[in-house]
Amino acid sequence: MRKIAILGSTGSIGTQALDVISSHPDLFEAYVLTANNNVDLLIAQARQFQPEAVVIANGVHYPTLKRALSDLPIKVYSGEQSLCEVVQDSEVDMVLASMVGFAGLRPTISAIKSKKAIALANKETLVVAGDLITRLCAQFEVPLLPVDSEHSAIFQCLEPGNAIEKILLTASGGPFRRFSSEELQKASPSQALSHPTWQMGAKITIDSASMMNKGFEVIEAHWLFGVPSDKIEVVVHPQSVIHSMVQFKDGAIKAQLGIPDMRMPIQYALGYPHRLANAYGRVDFPQLGSLTFEKPDLSRFRCLQLAYDALSEGGNMACIMNAANEIANRAFIDGKIPFMMISEIIEKTMNKIDKVYDCSLDTYLETDKKARRYANELVSLV
Amino acid sequence: MRKIAILGSTGSIGTQALDVISSHPDLFEAYVLTANNNVDLLIAQARQFQPEAVVIANGVHYPTLKRALSDLPIKVYSGEQSLCEVVQDSEVDMVLASMVGFAGLRPTISAIKSKKAIALANKETLVVAGDLITRLCAQFEVPLLPVDSEHSAIFQCLEPGNAIEKILLTASGGPFRRFSSEELQKASPSQALSHPTWQMGAKITIDSASMMNKGFEVIEAHWLFGVPSDKIEVVVHPQSVIHSMVQFKDGAIKAQLGIPDMRMPIQYALGYPHRLANAYGRVDFPQLGSLTFEKPDLSRFRCLQLAYDALSEGGNMACIMNAANEIANRAFIDGKIPFMMISEIIEKTMNKIDKVYDCSLDTYLETDKKARRYANELVSLV
Repeated sequence: MRKIAILGSTGSIGTQALDVISSHPDLFEAYVLTANNNVDLLIAQARQFQPEAVVIANGVHYPTLKRALSDLPIKVYSGEQSLCEVVQDSEVDMVLASMVGFAGLRPTISAIKSKKAIALANKETLVVAGDLITRLCAQFEVPLLPVDSEHSAIFQCLEPGNAIEKILLTASGGPFRRFSSEELQKASPSQALSHPTWQMGAKITIDSASMMNKGFEVIEAHWLFGVPSDKIEVVVHPQSVIHSMVQFKDGAIKAQLGIPDMRMPIQYALGYPHRLANAYGRVDFPQLGSLTFEKPDLSRFRCLQLAYDALSEGGNMACIMNAANEIANRAFIDGKIPFMMISEIIEKTMNKIDKVYDCSLDTYLETDKKARRYANELVSLV
Repeated sequence: MRKIAILGSTGSIGTQALDVISSHPDLFEAYVLTANNNVDLLIAQARQFQPEAVVIANGVHYPTLKRALSDLPIKVYSGEQSLCEVVQDSEVDMVLASMVGFAGLRPTISAIKSKKAIALANKETLVVAGDLITRLCAQFEVPLLPVDSEHSAIFQCLEPGNAIEKILLTASGGPFRRFSSEELQKASPSQALSHPTWQMGAKITIDSASMMNKGFEVIEAHWLFGVPSDKIEVVVHPQSVIHSMVQFKDGAIKAQLGIPDMRMPIQYALGYPHRLANAYGRVDFPQLGSLTFEKPDLSRFRCLQLAYDALSEGGNMACIMNAANEIANRAFIDGKIPFMMISEIIEKTMNKIDKVYDCSLDTYLETDKKARRYANELVSLV
């Protein structure tokens, strides 16, 4: 029985992870559930899965949560510090880090320091602090299992002892793949939220539309697999069936494919190294007919280029980029800025904030604050 | 230094293997070279690679070979028995079985019994006697490394401990993929010899045109990977970039891809488990544009159905099928029978020859003889 703490159990990844867990009650136990604000769903999940503990990050909801679960022997906590503490419970085997954004960083570090296996769905953790996280994982001998479908695919294709020549990171291209620059100027949040192949949360869906998400994944791939940026090639593949590929030094390529269903990479990470049977869909190649490939357009999708730039620059640059993106992404959803201004705000913030190359956790926290403040100023000027 | 005996060094696989060996002179040595009839090329190869020994199977050419190499310290032999003996040399580390047809069986068995690692390019060996060969490999603890691009791909995708749900065996569809039944009736040997994606020897190219080759590969996959026939699905993929795929029980698929160049799977087998750098081509996905998939048409390509039938029947049925195919394939190349008669001759022979279910090597040798005799009779009646 693997006891799992799910950070962000009410989000898209979290709810799908609970679906996986409920399909394998003999193998997995939802031991800790946490949410940021969605107290109603957290209550329902707690009643269904009967975890040891629940945490609501936003303390405002604590009384509601406490009252609703008062008839059950479930420990109820609130606040960010509690997130860092619950993952340290000696009974916890694995932490699924599926919170959204920068907020996932500290609880993940806390889990690594307690030697918990990490199933990483929060991509900002590696984008912001990949250097720190991978160093800590090595130091505490903690496995870091990617949950992103792309990185899970790459992970599944690795061979011990055989070096990677190139990573081919596939991208659906998002809802705006065929939009002209003029159409992108006028793109609305509801258009951006209609992803062609993947059902995901709002923030990541907007990041997919801007291809910032793919930029994050380039940075994640760098940290997870130790491959330099010029060996990570993004290939637009609209069907999202090839989840990514690894090319070895003999020119052989290995790919992992499947229907676009996040439960598959989630299940792979939770069950690793064992693959578990499931009744999720299967690819029917003749019915599919064809898989297509294009080069990404870095001029229309400037965020992807900015991510390559941030990775080359190193230090706190990706942290600056991520903070500015979180502000710009939110501002776009809220109708405060047009779509094309997302990359402008990110780029201006990257140019403005002081660069630091030798970074501690405090550097990242400080950088994040400064970058958000500046990006918010830019939004307020619109 | 890995010392390699190449059975069939003057054929398509053999010459490409020597190309691989000459690219890695620090890793590989061509220790034994053998040919059936092509004495001129064998002489040239022997002078270039300076092997310990050479064998010409057809004794007629022995004096020519002996004389041509008289100034070199190379042992020169002839005859089938010599093939079985040279592979037993204690210095030989690996035997590349790349002879064409049934003739590869006995030397391969001899090599297995001498505990040599086998790189298997001769598919008839497993088609005819897969049960015997895999049992011997297990008994003598000999690794059996597939050289066919499809089986190499599957082999590269395997995961110890994770069972296969399905094998997706890709097929280019050959030169006649889009031919109607009427066009197939009139298809000529020169049309059949124009394979769209792979450069191969004549016999296998005709087998590709009839899809008998893909049928052989279904049977090979069964024996190599222990997967029943209903879990081996042929998918027509005309670009020959995905070399084959494995689906695991969680629905995840792993594929191996690359440009169609036989040197890559040859190099993989010779160097296994280490991948070696090379300057062969690389796939450019955006340039490629798309990969397509179709169901095979078992009514137009009857040989593929016959192979599934032979595998289901078991015993000596695949041996009968192979023998009849060798005769029919040759008769078609020689202009003696029309293309569509290849499958007719095979099917009639499969219906005629006595079935044996508990087979020894002698059973296969006897079956092979009988089936060839009957298939030849059918050809002579045309």
